[in-house]
Amino acid sequence: MTTAPAAALGTRELALRERARRVIPGGMYGHMRVEAFSRAHPQFMVSGNGCRVTDADGREYIDLMCGWGPIVLGHRHPAVTAAILDQFERGDCLDGTSPVAVDYAELLVDTVPSADWAMFCKNGTDATTMCVTTARAATGRRKVLVATGAYHGAVPWCALRGKGVTAEDQAHLIHFEYNDLASAEAAAAEAGDDLAAILVCPMRHDIRRDQELADPAFARGLRALADRTGAVLILDDVRCGLRLDLRGSWEPLGVRPDLTAWSKALANGQPLGAVTGTEALRDAARSIYVTGSFWYAAVPLAAGLATLRELRKGQALPAMARTGSRLRDGLAAQAAAHGFEIRQTGPVQMPVLYFAEDSDISLGTAWAEAAVTRGVYLHPWHNWFLSAAHTDADIDDILDRTDDAFAAVRRLPH
Amino acid sequence: MTTAPAAALGTRELALRERARRVIPGGMYGHMRVEAFSRAHPQFMVSGNGCRVTDADGREYIDLMCGWGPIVLGHRHPAVTAAILDQFERGDCLDGTSPVAVDYAELLVDTVPSADWAMFCKNGTDATTMCVTTARAATGRRKVLVATGAYHGAVPWCALRGKGVTAEDQAHLIHFEYNDLASAEAAAAEAGDDLAAILVCPMRHDIRRDQELADPAFARGLRALADRTGAVLILDDVRCGLRLDLRGSWEPLGVRPDLTAWSKALANGQPLGAVTGTEALRDAARSIYVTGSFWYAAVPLAAGLATLRELRKGQALPAMARTGSRLRDGLAAQAAAHGFEIRQTGPVQMPVLYFAEDSDISLGTAWAEAAVTRGVYLHPWHNWFLSAAHTDADIDDILDRTDDAFAAVRRLPH
Repeated sequence: MTTAPAAALGTRELALRERARRVIPGGMYGHMRVEAFSRAHPQFMVSGNGCRVTDADGREYIDLMCGWGPIVLGHRHPAVTAAILDQFERGDCLDGTSPVAVDYAELLVDTVPSADWAMFCKNGTDATTMCVTTARAATGRRKVLVATGAYHGAVPWCALRGKGVTAEDQAHLIHFEYNDLASAEAAAAEAGDDLAAILVCPMRHDIRRDQELADPAFARGLRALADRTGAVLILDDVRCGLRLDLRGSWEPLGVRPDLTAWSKALANGQPLGAVTGTEALRDAARSIYVTGSFWYAAVPLAAGLATLRELRKGQALPAMARTGSRLRDGLAAQAAAHGFEIRQTGPVQMPVLYFAEDSDISLGTAWAEAAVTRGVYLHPWHNWFLSAAHTDADIDDILDRTDDAFAAVRRLPH
Repeated sequence: MTTAPAAALGTRELALRERARRVIPGGMYGHMRVEAFSRAHPQFMVSGNGCRVTDADGREYIDLMCGWGPIVLGHRHPAVTAAILDQFERGDCLDGTSPVAVDYAELLVDTVPSADWAMFCKNGTDATTMCVTTARAATGRRKVLVATGAYHGAVPWCALRGKGVTAEDQAHLIHFEYNDLASAEAAAAEAGDDLAAILVCPMRHDIRRDQELADPAFARGLRALADRTGAVLILDDVRCGLRLDLRGSWEPLGVRPDLTAWSKALANGQPLGAVTGTEALRDAARSIYVTGSFWYAAVPLAAGLATLRELRKGQALPAMARTGSRLRDGLAAQAAAHGFEIRQTGPVQMPVLYFAEDSDISLGTAWAEAAVTRGVYLHPWHNWFLSAAHTDADIDDILDRTDDAFAAVRRLPH
């Protein structure tokens, strides 16, 4: 099949892209470089409110990416916005930490059963790196098991792609297959008495493929493997954290990690990462030297505190589960009505949709482009994110537009 | 000699420390863990305004650390504050980048002669890591020369201390001595045809020792060495950037790096890092995969733009040079009057002060503790930072208090 013609990008968007190409390599970098996944998505956005975002040409979209995860309560959530402005008025980047760091660490420890302490940082990658370093400090060992294809950050020690990485950067990684306990056991055997940690995401959410929930037996098996070998079980909850279960994404499975890496949704958009861990790892966490110029700033911590307080009220996560199901059911019905076979995988709060027999994701890309030109911002091959700001009416509004997108893709020559 | 008795910390400070010890390993971590350098400095701060900060007990200090560097215009600078609030009102963490990223990249490129492009991130460590990765991508080589003891971040590949680091993390680093061109030549020879980069700070600002300005012949020699070997010259301007020379800290020496890492002062306290580079390295920068959840957020970029616009007005850097000289001259006179031999090194905008015959820095620590209890926040063994908010009157106020601190230390038994 051929794909849809490129949707017309706005004049301001085009002018900004032209300027950006001169002063930013490739015009943009990283996961938000839209030319890597679409000819129709705007590169530039200027505002957000609730579950809606607006691009540089004033076009509004219902947002199914939520800032690629951080926005869990909705853009400009009143309570978080008030906390940000209040803290900013008082003080942000000072010579010492704000008391809000203690308030927030206490609330995290109270919320997360596997947490006896917390440390804060800026990036998800900061958090995963701190976890691995802590595990090595605790065990005096070096090897780290990671699932093939799993994303744990964009720095050389865990990079999945891109240039400039040396073999030594990843010399102590040993790979296993997600949801394949035997492969993890084999990787542990390869590590022998040098096994420091098992680093794993709560589900398989690798790009360009179906998501897979963790098989509870797999999760429990990793916990037992860590216990048996004296290795540290690290849960990389950066992407899923605070959307699936406030206590940690494996708590429903009864599996508690030794260390957890958090970021994205922690502070509803403010730059914040965190590591939480067990009492047994407190001294090891203290023994590593980690820091950053902005890690102690008060505003993101105040936003984190306000976000967690709001989430603990108990309405946000059930709301995302309900609206996520409504979206999934609606998309399934639409696809069937238009004669498409699709796969929707992963938890409904973090959906992804692929078309059958679409290995190059050209059909999926055409559909995502059709959706974005109709005012629904979603991605062809990275999971989406719901927020608590999405109402049933917003989902129905999305579905009105995606129905039209399915119809448009159906009309394409193939 | 014995040191001064511990100054009385405030009751709120003590209560916060007790709570923090339960939920944060060691009570705090990284460079802001005050127990690592003082018994008198407050761990917790609640507000800042101009060149003054206030701790949890309401005690005010004249600030000579400036958030450990970021605060270059003063806390709550009106123009930056207005830019932050204006951008926050419109949008911060969205699904795409804000147009302000382009405005800011253009202004950086216009300001920094060695910059043909810019990329943005959150930490100084993000920026140095991106530089090294870009250099390896550009050259297809692996070895990186770094000065012994130089701080380039707190992650395993460049860690100076702390546990959890493996030999492989630093397998491709080769060390030279700062300001010793022959040692750099020898390190390059050791790297042979595998030399990817020379990573160097604009001056030697290692902790616990005198600072050293770069010998211009050393800087020019590194430039020539990089040119001769085809290696990339990376300037780590994270700590000095925008305080010594807006064009880059080695521009006065006539030495232009291929890549520059920036952070700290870029956005007057907002979390932001950047890499700038030459046209020759644009494709390599594009070929690496780097990203972060909050790297595209608009508020820190708007703050960076406002900060650079303010600095380009031309008053801030000369003001810091003038007040820095006034401080240095005053401290020198006071030390002599009180019969102390001291060393003040580095640029006056980033001073540090050591006492003679004080190898364990016990005297320096006692003096810093005496200063902080008298309302001047400075550090015993990390360089301080001036800001444009410091006036001559503020310096005189500082000197009134440091005179008393010298007198107090003179009265100690020894």
